[in-house]
Amino acid sequence: MKRKSGLKGKRSLALSLVYRLLEPGPVVLLTTSGPRGPNVMAMSWHMMVDFEPPVVACVVSNRDYTFGLLKRSGECVINIPTVELARQVVGCGNISGRKVDKFSRFGLTHIPASSVGAPLIKECYANLECRVEDFSMASKYNIFILRVMRAWIDREMVNPRTIHHMGMGKFMVSGRTIRLASRKK
Amino acid sequence: MKRKSGLKGKRSLALSLVYRLLEPGPVVLLTTSGPRGPNVMAMSWHMMVDFEPPVVACVVSNRDYTFGLLKRSGECVINIPTVELARQVVGCGNISGRKVDKFSRFGLTHIPASSVGAPLIKECYANLECRVEDFSMASKYNIFILRVMRAWIDREMVNPRTIHHMGMGKFMVSGRTIRLASRKK
Repeated sequence: MKRKSGLKGKRSLALSLVYRLLEPGPVVLLTTSGPRGPNVMAMSWHMMVDFEPPVVACVVSNRDYTFGLLKRSGECVINIPTVELARQVVGCGNISGRKVDKFSRFGLTHIPASSVGAPLIKECYANLECRVEDFSMASKYNIFILRVMRAWIDREMVNPRTIHHMGMGKFMVSGRTIRLASRKK
Repeated sequence: MKRKSGLKGKRSLALSLVYRLLEPGPVVLLTTSGPRGPNVMAMSWHMMVDFEPPVVACVVSNRDYTFGLLKRSGECVINIPTVELARQVVGCGNISGRKVDKFSRFGLTHIPASSVGAPLIKECYANLECRVEDFSMASKYNIFILRVMRAWIDREMVNPRTIHHMGMGKFMVSGRTIRLASRKK
């Protein structure tokens, strides 16, 4: 019941379309779950690896609290915020989940995912439920290979203004879109 | 002589600042060099892996002509275009270097790099000379780990309008920037 009501307002997104969300390079909020509850961190180091099923690589520093949670649980959710959440994103990036519950600190709502133990962030306009497919690069490069199991997108969101990190608290806000004839996905 | 004049108008960028160029997720043009001369492809699947020395991961499909050139030479340049080059970027993404010389087809100028055999694209506002540091993920995931050896940026460029791929010829053009207090790089 709680799950259903949590996902109200979101619709399932075809996995073949996930790359369109991540390729433009938005800052994302990565959620995990551990013995002390859910955690969230801000992340800009991610890239698509394959279209369908969607595979994503990301870098999580072994100094981050998330690193251990991700290694142990093997599950996470990539949540994509818009500029309205910029303050919360910076907040999440500046404090460790070892110290505080960042959800309550920054007023973010965690709701249960449908296929993984890590939660979705309700306030984010898109949410990608992921399982770690390959840990082999985690020790040397902090790289995790994720497979997107399920994707959600807000029903109401039109033209989401994502934010893109440029260092030291500076962010680019996504601007106008242009279309060119292309034969490529 | 040719090298010096080619780089006129560019200045060396501190390697510690390279992450600021790639984190926002711009489409880049990846150049390589092979027996038939220089080649270029469009690429959106890249991410930072480490700050300094800057390490970058990228995905180059084994169906792409660049894959073999990158594997054999172990060198490439990541060139960052602005929206003025959008038509050329799409062009580079839609045809294989096996068939045409994309530099002459799209009016792009290749100039010698300072530390690698792959060329810089003069028309791009930033250029990162890279060596492949790790090929071990190339066979399974098409992932190459690159180390940035030298970085260049246009002296004159102010507020570069990068383009960010959203699929099927749709691109987001980088918009306004915002600043928030942050303790993070």
